[in-house]
Amino acid sequence: MKIGFIGLGNMGQPIARTLLQAGHELIVYNRTRSAADELQGLGVPVANSPAQAAEAVEVLFTMLADDAALEAVLQGTADLPGAMGRLGQGAVHISLSTISVALSQRLAAAHAEAGQTYLAAPVFGRPEAAAAAKLWVVAAGDPAQLERCRPLLDAIGQGVFVVGDQPWLANVVKLSGNFLIASMLEALSEAFVLVQKSGVPPQQFLEIANTALFKSPLYQNYGTLIVEGRDLPAGFKLALGLKDVRLALEAAEAVAAPMPLASLVHDHCLSGVARGQADADWAVGLGRVNAQNAGLDL
Amino acid sequence: MKIGFIGLGNMGQPIARTLLQAGHELIVYNRTRSAADELQGLGVPVANSPAQAAEAVEVLFTMLADDAALEAVLQGTADLPGAMGRLGQGAVHISLSTISVALSQRLAAAHAEAGQTYLAAPVFGRPEAAAAAKLWVVAAGDPAQLERCRPLLDAIGQGVFVVGDQPWLANVVKLSGNFLIASMLEALSEAFVLVQKSGVPPQQFLEIANTALFKSPLYQNYGTLIVEGRDLPAGFKLALGLKDVRLALEAAEAVAAPMPLASLVHDHCLSGVARGQADADWAVGLGRVNAQNAGLDL
Amino acid sequence: MKIGFIGLGNMGQPIARTLLQAGHELIVYNRTRSAADELQGLGVPVANSPAQAAEAVEVLFTMLADDAALEAVLQGTADLPGAMGRLGQGAVHISLSTISVALSQRLAAAHAEAGQTYLAAPVFGRPEAAAAAKLWVVAAGDPAQLERCRPLLDAIGQGVFVVGDQPWLANVVKLSGNFLIASMLEALSEAFVLVQKSGVPPQQFLEIANTALFKSPLYQNYGTLIVEGRDLPAGFKLALGLKDVRLALEAAEAVAAPMPLASLVHDHCLSGVARGQADADWAVGLGRVNAQNAGLDL
Amino acid sequence: MKIGFIGLGNMGQPIARTLLQAGHELIVYNRTRSAADELQGLGVPVANSPAQAAEAVEVLFTMLADDAALEAVLQGTADLPGAMGRLGQGAVHISLSTISVALSQRLAAAHAEAGQTYLAAPVFGRPEAAAAAKLWVVAAGDPAQLERCRPLLDAIGQGVFVVGDQPWLANVVKLSGNFLIASMLEALSEAFVLVQKSGVPPQQFLEIANTALFKSPLYQNYGTLIVEGRDLPAGFKLALGLKDVRLALEAAEAVAAPMPLASLVHDHCLSGVARGQADADWAVGLGRVNAQNAGLDL
Repeated sequence: MKIGFIGLGNMGQPIARTLLQAGHELIVYNRTRSAADELQGLGVPVANSPAQAAEAVEVLFTMLADDAALEAVLQGTADLPGAMGRLGQGAVHISLSTISVALSQRLAAAHAEAGQTYLAAPVFGRPEAAAAAKLWVVAAGDPAQLERCRPLLDAIGQGVFVVGDQPWLANVVKLSGNFLIASMLEALSEAFVLVQKSGVPPQQFLEIANTALFKSPLYQNYGTLIVEGRDLPAGFKLALGLKDVRLALEAAEAVAAPMPLASLVHDHCLSGVARGQADADWAVGLGRVNAQNAGLDL
Repeated sequence: MKIGFIGLGNMGQPIARTLLQAGHELIVYNRTRSAADELQGLGVPVANSPAQAAEAVEVLFTMLADDAALEAVLQGTADLPGAMGRLGQGAVHISLSTISVALSQRLAAAHAEAGQTYLAAPVFGRPEAAAAAKLWVVAAGDPAQLERCRPLLDAIGQGVFVVGDQPWLANVVKLSGNFLIASMLEALSEAFVLVQKSGVPPQQFLEIANTALFKSPLYQNYGTLIVEGRDLPAGFKLALGLKDVRLALEAAEAVAAPMPLASLVHDHCLSGVARGQADADWAVGLGRVNAQNAGLDL
Repeated sequence: MKIGFIGLGNMGQPIARTLLQAGHELIVYNRTRSAADELQGLGVPVANSPAQAAEAVEVLFTMLADDAALEAVLQGTADLPGAMGRLGQGAVHISLSTISVALSQRLAAAHAEAGQTYLAAPVFGRPEAAAAAKLWVVAAGDPAQLERCRPLLDAIGQGVFVVGDQPWLANVVKLSGNFLIASMLEALSEAFVLVQKSGVPPQQFLEIANTALFKSPLYQNYGTLIVEGRDLPAGFKLALGLKDVRLALEAAEAVAAPMPLASLVHDHCLSGVARGQADADWAVGLGRVNAQNAGLDL
Repeated sequence: MKIGFIGLGNMGQPIARTLLQAGHELIVYNRTRSAADELQGLGVPVANSPAQAAEAVEVLFTMLADDAALEAVLQGTADLPGAMGRLGQGAVHISLSTISVALSQRLAAAHAEAGQTYLAAPVFGRPEAAAAAKLWVVAAGDPAQLERCRPLLDAIGQGVFVVGDQPWLANVVKLSGNFLIASMLEALSEAFVLVQKSGVPPQQFLEIANTALFKSPLYQNYGTLIVEGRDLPAGFKLALGLKDVRLALEAAEAVAAPMPLASLVHDHCLSGVARGQADADWAVGLGRVNAQNAGLDL
């Protein structure tokens, strides 16, 4: 298929490469052009604007950091024409970004009005999983179009979950999943503080809890991140974690679902941002907030 | 070894049987005598009091529901002589119960004063794991005595974690582990409400989250309990969950470790008890509290 | 002065009447026209659109329920021209509504661009206070324009607090004040449940606490509302309380200020809405949420 | 009447003096003897032990810092005979301390068994109010004995509230009142952080909120303490606030009343203690916790 791909960050880039390797014809766009160098080296044309990347494609993929970034490439800005104005009738927009339910609903309506289809397909997985085409895709939207685009989603992930014919349902699932991770981080951080102040090494406690109870690689990996607390390049920044938890709370408010644990994690993420941890990995950031709240030096 | 065993509930009974099968000489006591029938049928003598079960044994095991029950068998009551008065010098008391850090500290002091040894060895695992000798044991106390009793602990579990030479450290680890489980239940319950009110079946969400993220049998099992919400015999009652989270909070206050997530779970457990869910499985109980808080019928 | 007044709800109507009585020339607009009948009877012209109410006035007052309502009258809708398009250069817009900080900031920019002045002047006080010209006004914006409009603000209230030259600061203060009230409602509700389940009448406890501690008419009035728990017409609906607490949380997130108590109140308001209490007075609604959480019948 | 008085701290001392001035015959005891110097100078005999202070008195007052201190003077210690052993049959013990509901219940039973009466009469008010005999007394217990002792309670306060014939009810009311104060401190602290980070001076916000809304001297005084944040001698230490909130939570758990706001304040008090604020005034300590959580320097 002829595919436009906008957003070549640490997730978008490997996904685009995977689609290329699967034999599709791509045109890509990224705000910072250098991010497109590698794909250009592989013969992929690089658009000068979101509009150009959307022109005459059957499917437009977008993978942006947040609502604002996605809206900017779709609507365009003063000096940069947006994708919405150029996307053809009958085209499909597959949104991979973790965005708000509200924006997902607005986009579904806008594309429908333009005679296009909007599919939400946010993904679970870190950049390594994207590079290995091992993402998990949560997809929702018009069943026929989803069926048609299924090979594309199959190509980038190891599994596709279809959760409904309203695109925003995929966003709810993605946000709920991230909420579960954030809750795990908060729980581990609090437990680590308790055992450490009691005199048991958190690393040992993690081993016990994961051996005897959870048996989960996620607990192992994230727990180790918290315990080590290093200032490494963040896999997922606390500021993005804050955003996702806020989006989960907004989605919950829209359906009148109180989520006090999400509120707690939100407040701790915000406290971390206020204390200078916005760019720390969210595991490290939440670990630090709970440690500092207990008077521990870092 | 000659072993006294007090407390033949759904955990104590299979553990005692395992020790018997491992070739040890047992004498057992249980408040409700009928619980001892099966072991008696296997030739195990049944004591008439905690005191009798403690007489002339090398090791006394106790497996009781809470602090009050353990204290009652140790101190005795008006008409029932307790174990402390009859346990010999040099004997070892291995406490398997999930009790408070404060009681564990008092018992360590009391046994030391009586020329005895107190080891804390709370276990992770449900009754099925106890029956299969697949518990995980968290042990702490005097290293030499722990070494000496190690074969007993190896017999009842698939692994023993030694966390320090202060017995109460094992209790901190056990309570912290239960806190992690309770936090998982709260997180799942809240997420289930959000997806359900949005229109995604919680069962499907659980499958997605555990496939793409956690890959944990604990999430699978407990998540299914919440989703199904059945009034089956509770594996672990909400009232006991409330107790454990309170004990975690007490342990945390003793070392000045704030645990807001533990506080949240505590309040939800208490709310469940207030709404008649004391005897429900804690997964089901917490699920119901969050569902009702969101106005869902059950 | 020549004044346009948009929004004749239970607060706007008495305020408009006060301005009239102070000798100003008014033209008014309300979505539901009947609300303007009384003022029309006093000789006040009633506009057919927000635009007409804004035409050729020196000062435009708006008093709407929320962001969406205010934006609707300012931008207009398909069949109803908005005020922004017709308000003259040099005019002043005094916004009395309790709106978001973000909207207040956008309006300040929009009016500045149009050569107009935007002042935020949200008020504390219930409809009775509005009728008696006893509101408290919190005002912010350009000092010279504030000075010029000061007589108008003095007329409607018993006091005016100027909190800065950025209009949104007045909104922060208003939202923070409402947060304090909501926190008081939550605290009283929880205490009432504790004393009631212990066997002390909440009414007696309220009397003791307010006599010995707070000596505050607000505690007296709101506390009595909670205790009585009547389904009277709400002075201030729970749904509006939810909105205000959410706006406080948004304002707090914008400056990286964690507010866990605001989060708690938000979740309880939302739980009340989910349980059918959206139209109850927020004191009654929060009281019911806490009572139900403790298993009390109502 | 012949009165024993144990506990001459900053509350007990002025109360004892008031009773003396009201014409009663006193004998006093304090662990640190120097605290009794002033009363001795007025001719009051100073006992060498709690037991001596309880001997042959009609009424024994106690005013201690916490459960442990009260139990120590009642039971006595290795080298200091306690009051319980010497208090005569028919005597009345009036407990002014802010203690746990559980201890109050145990004391009621113990005194009844000894043919004595236990009345709980905790007080609201700071040391200045005690010196001016302006305390508010919350009393509960046997009505006839309360009636008999009423003149004593009237002497020390400006009002007596009788809340039931079970002594512990007075403790519930006292703890609930302190919970309301703690909640106010938390609410004010959070609001102050929001307005300060927005650019409005907290002092101005306090003035607005108390003028327009609360009109409460308590808000004025405590709010000013938080705003000024001085390291003055604490009127009421954060460590004591933590204790009182914990006792409220224990009382609430006993009647299955979830109190999430109490839990939040508990966690913040504990965080303050963990960060070295145990001896700060609780208003200052809670203010600092919320400021630090928002990244503010102090």
